[in-house]
Amino acid sequence: MLIVQVFVHVVPEHVDAFIAASEANAAASREEPGVVRFDLLREEGATDRFVLLEIYRTDEDPARHKETAHYATWKTAVEPWMASPRKSVKYRALSPADPASWKSA
Amino acid sequence: MLIVQVFVHVVPEHVDAFIAASEANAAASREEPGVVRFDLLREEGATDRFVLLEIYRTDEDPARHKETAHYATWKTAVEPWMASPRKSVKYRALSPADPASWKSA
Repeated sequence: MLIVQVFVHVVPEHVDAFIAASEANAAASREEPGVVRFDLLREEGATDRFVLLEIYRTDEDPARHKETAHYATWKTAVEPWMASPRKSVKYRALSPADPASWKSA
Repeated sequence: MLIVQVFVHVVPEHVDAFIAASEANAAASREEPGVVRFDLLREEGATDRFVLLEIYRTDEDPARHKETAHYATWKTAVEPWMASPRKSVKYRALSPADPASWKSA
């Protein structure tokens, strides 16, 4: 299991469009067999800062995600709306250790 | 629902003790009625960088968590092991919107 957080800073006038595009991307991504969770968060008190919290079954699944049509659509749409380059950080789960428990209830 | 991420940088020689203390704190925290999830992540490629991913039912629940004995035990133990001050950032869930879906499977 691999956890990826993408920290995103969006130009204020494109925030609503970013949310709509990212919700559509998240919904489609959750249908991928390699995706355990795909969540969208907004930083409290910062309307233009977001986190994509992506949990993949294996180390190969992020690359498969990037081959999908919905990812390409999302990337093309949102790239011009970034206030600064987005930052992606990978994590491993220490606790809970059981990958099954990372799924959505 | 309120999501809190605590970004932690630990002095290398205390990493194992930090993990043990944080796993114990996470296990006890999951028993709190106000805690939806309480997860421990380690940054890939950085053995000394961690994230506590804490999901609370209401805005009042983080304060209740800080009143527990297990939190006090954890804080007292780990505070001297920090390589730099830990950083806490609050988030709101945009997607999935249903709080029930943020629970562990």
